[in-house]
Amino acid sequence: MDKDQKSVVALIHGKDRPGLVALVSNWIFEHGGNILHADLHRDLEAEIFFQRVEWETPVKNWDSELQAFEYRMHELGMHVKWHLVEDQPNVALFVSKIDHCFHDLILRWKSGEYPGKICCILSNHKNLEIEARKYQIPYYYVPVSQNTKEQAEAVQLEIIHKYHLDLIILARYMQVLSPKLIENANCPIINIHHSFLPAFVGAKPYHQAFERGVKIIGATAHYVTEKLDAGPIIQQDVARIHHRHMVRDIIRKGKDLEKMVLSQAVRWHLEHRVLSYHGKTVVFD
Amino acid sequence: MDKDQKSVVALIHGKDRPGLVALVSNWIFEHGGNILHADLHRDLEAEIFFQRVEWETPVKNWDSELQAFEYRMHELGMHVKWHLVEDQPNVALFVSKIDHCFHDLILRWKSGEYPGKICCILSNHKNLEIEARKYQIPYYYVPVSQNTKEQAEAVQLEIIHKYHLDLIILARYMQVLSPKLIENANCPIINIHHSFLPAFVGAKPYHQAFERGVKIIGATAHYVTEKLDAGPIIQQDVARIHHRHMVRDIIRKGKDLEKMVLSQAVRWHLEHRVLSYHGKTVVFD
Amino acid sequence: MDKDQKSVVALIHGKDRPGLVALVSNWIFEHGGNILHADLHRDLEAEIFFQRVEWETPVKNWDSELQAFEYRMHELGMHVKWHLVEDQPNVALFVSKIDHCFHDLILRWKSGEYPGKICCILSNHKNLEIEARKYQIPYYYVPVSQNTKEQAEAVQLEIIHKYHLDLIILARYMQVLSPKLIENANCPIINIHHSFLPAFVGAKPYHQAFERGVKIIGATAHYVTEKLDAGPIIQQDVARIHHRHMVRDIIRKGKDLEKMVLSQAVRWHLEHRVLSYHGKTVVFD
Amino acid sequence: MDKDQKSVVALIHGKDRPGLVALVSNWIFEHGGNILHADLHRDLEAEIFFQRVEWETPVKNWDSELQAFEYRMHELGMHVKWHLVEDQPNVALFVSKIDHCFHDLILRWKSGEYPGKICCILSNHKNLEIEARKYQIPYYYVPVSQNTKEQAEAVQLEIIHKYHLDLIILARYMQVLSPKLIENANCPIINIHHSFLPAFVGAKPYHQAFERGVKIIGATAHYVTEKLDAGPIIQQDVARIHHRHMVRDIIRKGKDLEKMVLSQAVRWHLEHRVLSYHGKTVVFD
Repeated sequence: MDKDQKSVVALIHGKDRPGLVALVSNWIFEHGGNILHADLHRDLEAEIFFQRVEWETPVKNWDSELQAFEYRMHELGMHVKWHLVEDQPNVALFVSKIDHCFHDLILRWKSGEYPGKICCILSNHKNLEIEARKYQIPYYYVPVSQNTKEQAEAVQLEIIHKYHLDLIILARYMQVLSPKLIENANCPIINIHHSFLPAFVGAKPYHQAFERGVKIIGATAHYVTEKLDAGPIIQQDVARIHHRHMVRDIIRKGKDLEKMVLSQAVRWHLEHRVLSYHGKTVVFD
Repeated sequence: MDKDQKSVVALIHGKDRPGLVALVSNWIFEHGGNILHADLHRDLEAEIFFQRVEWETPVKNWDSELQAFEYRMHELGMHVKWHLVEDQPNVALFVSKIDHCFHDLILRWKSGEYPGKICCILSNHKNLEIEARKYQIPYYYVPVSQNTKEQAEAVQLEIIHKYHLDLIILARYMQVLSPKLIENANCPIINIHHSFLPAFVGAKPYHQAFERGVKIIGATAHYVTEKLDAGPIIQQDVARIHHRHMVRDIIRKGKDLEKMVLSQAVRWHLEHRVLSYHGKTVVFD
Repeated sequence: MDKDQKSVVALIHGKDRPGLVALVSNWIFEHGGNILHADLHRDLEAEIFFQRVEWETPVKNWDSELQAFEYRMHELGMHVKWHLVEDQPNVALFVSKIDHCFHDLILRWKSGEYPGKICCILSNHKNLEIEARKYQIPYYYVPVSQNTKEQAEAVQLEIIHKYHLDLIILARYMQVLSPKLIENANCPIINIHHSFLPAFVGAKPYHQAFERGVKIIGATAHYVTEKLDAGPIIQQDVARIHHRHMVRDIIRKGKDLEKMVLSQAVRWHLEHRVLSYHGKTVVFD
Repeated sequence: MDKDQKSVVALIHGKDRPGLVALVSNWIFEHGGNILHADLHRDLEAEIFFQRVEWETPVKNWDSELQAFEYRMHELGMHVKWHLVEDQPNVALFVSKIDHCFHDLILRWKSGEYPGKICCILSNHKNLEIEARKYQIPYYYVPVSQNTKEQAEAVQLEIIHKYHLDLIILARYMQVLSPKLIENANCPIINIHHSFLPAFVGAKPYHQAFERGVKIIGATAHYVTEKLDAGPIIQQDVARIHHRHMVRDIIRKGKDLEKMVLSQAVRWHLEHRVLSYHGKTVVFD
């Protein structure tokens, strides 16, 4: 990357109309930018236009330029979110006792696979505290019971705000977040559900799958919304099982699926490839 | 295959107990049989023993021998179904207007991929009559409306019995069969459902999938039971979709899935590899 | 589609330089066009810019407009190929004795899955002549032996030119085409090879796969070039096998793979999504 | 598991002949054993019989009983290997600088997914020493250069013998083992090769894959033999790539593949499911 340049990614969407592609690329060109990648999508039924565009802009006045870009997009009736590629997001993991996604995500960050860092771990159990310490990541034990949930969430929110989080990942966190927490967290929350949604919503999906006798199991990463397991799906994958697989085998196979699906969804999110609308996502892969 | 030998496949299941494997293989050995393939399964939770065993038995007295085998298995408290490998099953296709599974299955039979033959086509529409005629397969047009359903099913049953069917395949037949027909057909019925069951039960599953924004679609072949889309699953498969896929693309991709899944389930059934119990299947692949 | 508009797809590539996206989209916009889809790619190592762009252009003077577009792209140092979406390509199938891809492709054309039509079948055997007749497609029997190959190819070229072919599909055609025929055919040629290239080049790849004991088999659709099985790969897919699969099972499983892979590659080609360069392809899916 | 019983797994193979299934199951039954699982395979071309059988045998005299079993199998002309299910294998990892398979395997052992333990790590680099120490596993740094290879392998063999290893795993170890070391190690060695063998043998397979423009990449776990990358394949898997994936993306995607494929092969090996012969494997999954 050129030191005189800053790389920007913008996610744009809004009511479709002729000429949008030219208007966007033109604006960038005329302001000295060079488009590196551009991908667009039209939902022809809903008449919505979506674009992900990545460009290099001269480092001089980049912030006022991007404000001008935002202003121009708003004039065109578009929603826009932009990010500098060099931005280093602050991330938190919520975990309970199960540790496979916990280790998997931390090792990916340590190996440089993702930008930013895991600022802290929050858990309703103490089980992973020692492991977190080995990784030198602050660990907050916030127990949650039916009676103390409101209180516990207040503590969680304090921690969330303290670290100025850009993303929360529920890495097999076994508590349901309240609508209040979701709203006040003020950052996206990604959850991994261990079934091929919308099949097997709710608790113990692998047991449900075994009971039904399906031949394929799945895992689903989605943004968390107020409605349980119903948020916009970012990524799904599946694995084949057969009659010799008992519940514990399904759980074991599921762990590998969950790691793959969650880590993929997190990558796409951090690369600003995911745009969600109408309860679904557009993933500019 | 030796002309002095007949090949037999038996599917056995019943309450598990020690020594069953030895008892079965011993009986066969002592009666001059040679085991070609044997596969067993134990449902440890339900304590059920399952076995598929294929052997060659001398052609002399083979029928009384197999009766003796059946008798012995019953003594051991086992359910047993046996088939000669040379048996040529009679099969019927039920179709409506959609023709991809119709062509696919017929061409597989014509190429020698399956034993037996398609004796007839039944349809509630006339659309595929000319095509069936080109393939030289009798075509029965039996229209079904809400008021005439009972009558129509009586006609269907007559045809089913006339051909001594061993298997009925619902190759995208768009009518629900009544419990009465299912019972009186007196042969297994395989259906292809165009979703990854238990997700998207009922009508227009691809539209449902599009609406929910899933990233993977599926198809499911299952035995038909009284409860809609809830019979034992034989085979499932999936295909990846993305936001650029509109409903018509999903339908197109789904067609290929349906052909693969249905044809695989039919093969396993005809090779006597599928044993269903407790609403699930054991597939000895 | 608006009757006053024509839809155009252009595939553009050439040496990368700043501002290309804006220049292309601008040109289209200023000439009254509306971009429907646009996808771009940069090979950062080879410094090549690729774009697929689809737009609506007023029906008035569309041909001189497109000439102007082509002229402008050439000025920018770009290669460009454009097609009207309404174009109906002329296609020929080359077959030998094996019929699964033959049936599969014809049925897809008949069901409206592809634009254009299969104008004729060429074969070095008579086996599929009757089947072709049922589909009402002209069938040319052109036997090929080592001594008569040159002569046979002269006949083939005559047929190819007679039908003004836009695409030739080798649907399990078991003869190698000479460089001369490939050049003089003057249209793209897609072949299906029944292995996961570059593994198992040449004859009897399924036997080779069985011999090596691989756990997965594959099929590869590629453009035909002078070098056997080495042309740009359009699509590949795989299927899992295990030790119980003998060569004939691998062949059977392979047939389904070949149909899927070839039909997918043909679709992408006909939708003008494939751009080949440096022995590889960019597929704008 | 019953305390009065020991669970045994035997892998048997040899020249096929009638009655083998009955003879084996009978022997077990008559010696008070109860068969839990049994799976057999016949290579009809090579006329070889394969069986994996798992049974419970009374704890009294189990060792003399198993010797008798071995003796009986030899009488029948069969090769046999048996293992107690409770056996805890000693395993060593060979690593270089790359750490994803290293972490993945260690975490699987720590989570109880595999029996036995990782006794030690051998490496030709110091890079992973600190990480190994955190996991409290002995780490041996044995540098290897062209001139010191023989010496280095002598040191490696000493360590191998010291720990009475049952299995060596090359977890992206970047040195070729000499035939002498392979022979004297006297235990199976599993390697992960980062391509879909037999495609892209040798160095930098992901670069080769990128160069060729394949649409799918793979990974292969195999037993190590004298011939590089040509040993019996245990497991393979693939991932789809497209033109936007540069070499570094392929490497990243490949890491996840390698972890999955290697961990699966290791599991099958440790569960005594893999029988290798004629340069191939039978995997009783």
